Formats: sequence, structure tokens, C-alpha cells
Amino acid sequence: MGTVRVNGKPASHIDLLDRGFQYGDGVFTTFLLHKGVPLFLEQHLERLHRDCGRLAIPPVESAILRREVQAIVGDELEGVIKIQITRGVGGRGYRVPVTVNPTTVIALHPPPGYPDQYPIEGIQVRYCQTRLGINPVLAGIKHINRLEQVLARSEWSNDEIAEGLMLDHEGQLVEGTMSNVFLVRHGRLLTPQLDRCGVCGVMRSVLLSAAKTQGLSFDECRLTVSDIENADEAFVTNSIIGLWPIAGVEGKFLPVGPVTRKLREWLNQAIEQQTQAS
Amino acid sequence: MGTVRVNGKPASHIDLLDRGFQYGDGVFTTFLLHKGVPLFLEQHLERLHRDCGRLAIPPVESAILRREVQAIVGDELEGVIKIQITRGVGGRGYRVPVTVNPTTVIALHPPPGYPDQYPIEGIQVRYCQTRLGINPVLAGIKHINRLEQVLARSEWSNDEIAEGLMLDHEGQLVEGTMSNVFLVRHGRLLTPQLDRCGVCGVMRSVLLSAAKTQGLSFDECRLTVSDIENADEAFVTNSIIGLWPIAGVEGKFLPVGPVTRKLREWLNQAIEQQTQAS
Repeated sequence: MGTVRVNGKPASHIDLLDRGFQYGDGVFTTFLLHKGVPLFLEQHLERLHRDCGRLAIPPVESAILRREVQAIVGDELEGVIKIQITRGVGGRGYRVPVTVNPTTVIALHPPPGYPDQYPIEGIQVRYCQTRLGINPVLAGIKHINRLEQVLARSEWSNDEIAEGLMLDHEGQLVEGTMSNVFLVRHGRLLTPQLDRCGVCGVMRSVLLSAAKTQGLSFDECRLTVSDIENADEAFVTNSIIGLWPIAGVEGKFLPVGPVTRKLREWLNQAIEQQTQAS
Repeated sequence: MGTVRVNGKPASHIDLLDRGFQYGDGVFTTFLLHKGVPLFLEQHLERLHRDCGRLAIPPVESAILRREVQAIVGDELEGVIKIQITRGVGGRGYRVPVTVNPTTVIALHPPPGYPDQYPIEGIQVRYCQTRLGINPVLAGIKHINRLEQVLARSEWSNDEIAEGLMLDHEGQLVEGTMSNVFLVRHGRLLTPQLDRCGVCGVMRSVLLSAAKTQGLSFDECRLTVSDIENADEAFVTNSIIGLWPIAGVEGKFLPVGPVTRKLREWLNQAIEQQTQAS
């Protein structure tokens, strides 16, 4: 556990001139290793491919990434896998070099160890003061420029608050510091549109696809704090936590409702199918 | 040349778990070594101190940084010094560790080798399509989240264009990709206010102080593209280039005027004084 590979070889350090370290010039994705299976691996490889494309970082072949994931997993059964791809070394200042050789970092970390009751009973969340800047060019991408999230997460240290919700510069609800957010209103699933800021999480896409196949109507739209306070149900998602119902927002109680439970059950089954198929 | 020191020791690599590489969680500053003197060193140390404070990164003592700069300079006379301070290794995800041990990276790079005529005859600039997101919490800080600048700089490869000007999400003129921008109108110096986005460059502060002592009136204010197109003079600044007059903006001609020349002369003298005093 805790091992890392850089460009296909075991490593613990990265070139100081790597543009990932110099400018945060790269992308990443994080997912669970469960019962020896990297969950939703293909979706994570697709997201890396898409995010690299958005930043014009030459894509690393998925076959190579699959092989590297296997190499780092070895005989381990449980953990967190993080793949990071940067624009590599070179260029003059911000200017990108003519030939880019991306750096690929694959790490296996211990399982996160979040409380078992979070997916069942739900979590308490707060609103963060730190706002997300609006920039459509970067919106949706899981890039390494994450200072907004670092500052937002540093706003509280009370362990009873499991997540903080973030608004954009104009006051629209966007996401959690490490998660995407969903609301349910009159049986309809609502989640913020991420065309101006925020990260399009793989788990968010997986659940929106599930909603479609389950015949559950949904909308990606602009939402505000009052929408969450008037929601029938709400939950947050990411590829490590899966789905956590929101049981309370700054003291206001929310029930763990039927749509949340249905999607949680669907997700548990989808994971079970992946681990049994392997 | 090309040497680097990390936390007081020669090094070429950085821990992969450093938050600088993971999240761009850190700050930097870059300045000239000229005739063996690190130019405006004290101002650069002050800016690091201030920027670390803004991000709640424990400051590294200036005495230590001065010693490290001496160690990396050695007998070299000319070059570019870059100091980078990150929040170090640790924490759980975005969450900052309870005890932060900042990472200090000091590098000496070769001189930039820009064309000699740029400070005299001026440069051609363009407007970038990539906009700057508005976020007062990060505004002014020279942090490592620099994807906006990387994308903006990748918009052109024509070497006749020396710099690109960037607007914010609302269309206000903010800065160049690697520089601050100044206009002159009716003898008055104008530069964008950097309270919502942009980097407060050390050279910008140095020149605003000089303007004050020279009895030159100036304003930090909101400016637009039409302000630059109607300016009598314009120039860009940073600690590596010094001051470059803007001779043309997307084909529109601008003269290298008296205020620009006066500030350039003042800067040359200030640099001469520093190198003679050493």
C-alpha cells in the first residue's frame, strides 16, 4: 500500500520542473479498489481522456493506464487509486513546449475509512464562504488547480460536518468541496449544471445514467441555497464515498428519502456486479 | 546554473505527495539575478510572506530565504531566481494537516534572453480569448494555480506577439499572461485594480511607489479594452522583463511616450543603484 508509479516505474518523487508542480498544469481522477476490482475504471479512463483533451494535453493510451493500474494493484484488495496526468517537463514559463511528454502518476492509497453510517443515515453539511470563480474554459475538468477547494475545506475542523457546499461567484449552488450535489423535488432529481465551474464527477455521470435507465426524471440546472433548503431529499456523491444522503444543512433537517435510497441501492448492486464479474 | 535547492539541500525532485503537486497548493515569486545581485529581493520576500499569509501557509523566515538565495547564487552573476513555497506533504484530501511543514524550493535558471529592443521599441500584444475567473479570495496572490495563464499563453505561437492581455469573466482588462499592464491617459498612470483576480506583481508595486515619489498621479481602477485602445501610452511589467512599452495592440499603433520613458529610466537607475551598492 502507499506505492506510486511514475511513467511506468516505481517512484516516490517527481521532477521539480514538472508543470504539474510549477503551475498545477494537469488533471487527475480518484477511484476505489474494492475486492480487488478498480470500480468504474473505464469511466475514469474516459474522464481522464476527455479532461486531457480539454487542456490539450496529449492523451495517454488507455491500454497503458489499464496495465499501470494492474501493476500498482498487485494482490491488494481494498484502497484508493489516484491517476494524475500532467503536461510534463518543459516549455518557457507558461508557454507549452512544442513536444509534450505527459507525466503519468498512479498511486495506491489505503481505504478512506469514512464512518459506516454515512451512506445509511446521512451526513451534516455546511455552506462554505469560499466561492468558486466562474470560468467556462475550466468548468467540469478535474484539474490540479484546487486552491478554492483547499481554502473551502479549511473553513471548518468540526468532524461532525462531513462536507461543505460551495456556491459560485454569483451565488449559485455548484458542488461540495470533494463531491457533487443532488436534490430531489417532487420526485425529480436536480443537480447543478457544471458549464461555468465545478467538477463533473464520474459518480455524478454514473448516477445520471442510472436515473435515465431507471426512468427517473432529472435536470441539470441552476440551483440556489433556497432550492436545497426546500428540497425533499438531497445527497452528495463521489467515486470514493459513493452516495451520502444529506441529513442536515446547517441545522435544518432533511429526510433520507425514497429516491436517495433507490439510487443508493442501484449503486450497491452495480458495484456488486462489477466485483462478481471479475 | 539550473540548480535547485529544496528545504536547504540540493535536489532535483519533489515528494509526489507534496500539496504543490497534488493541488497547486502554494505560491511563488520570480526575479532577476543581475551583476550578482538578486534585484528587489526584499520586496519579493515580502510578497511571499504576504501571499503565504493569505493562504494560511506558515511563513518561512526571510533570514532563511536570504541565506538560501545566497547559497543558490554562489558565484553566478546573471540568471532568474524562482522561490516556490508549498503547504508541504500531508492532510487528507483537500483538508490541510494539523501541522504544516512548508516546502521551500529555490531554483536558479539561465537569463531569459528576450530581445534587447523590447524595452526600447516596445512589443506587439494581442487579446486572449481565455478569461480570468473572478475570485477575491485568490485575487492578487501569485499562487501555483496557473491553468488560466497556461491556456491563454497557448492561444498563439507567433513570436512577433510578445504578450497576451487577459480580461476577466465580466470583460474588464486585468493583466498580461505573465505581466501587469499600465496605461497612460492625459499624463495620468492607470492600472487595473486587482481585488477580484490577477497577480499583484512586485514590479507593479515598485513602479507604483516610484510614480508616487516622482509626483506622477496614478489610479488603480477598472479598465476595459476601449481604455487601452484610447490610451496615449501603455506598457507591461514584471520582475524579469522590467518594463516593456506596448507598441501595438492587434495592429493598432501606440507610441512609446514620455511617461513610459520616464518610468523606464527610473527603473534602470534603481537597478543600477542596487548593483552598485552591493
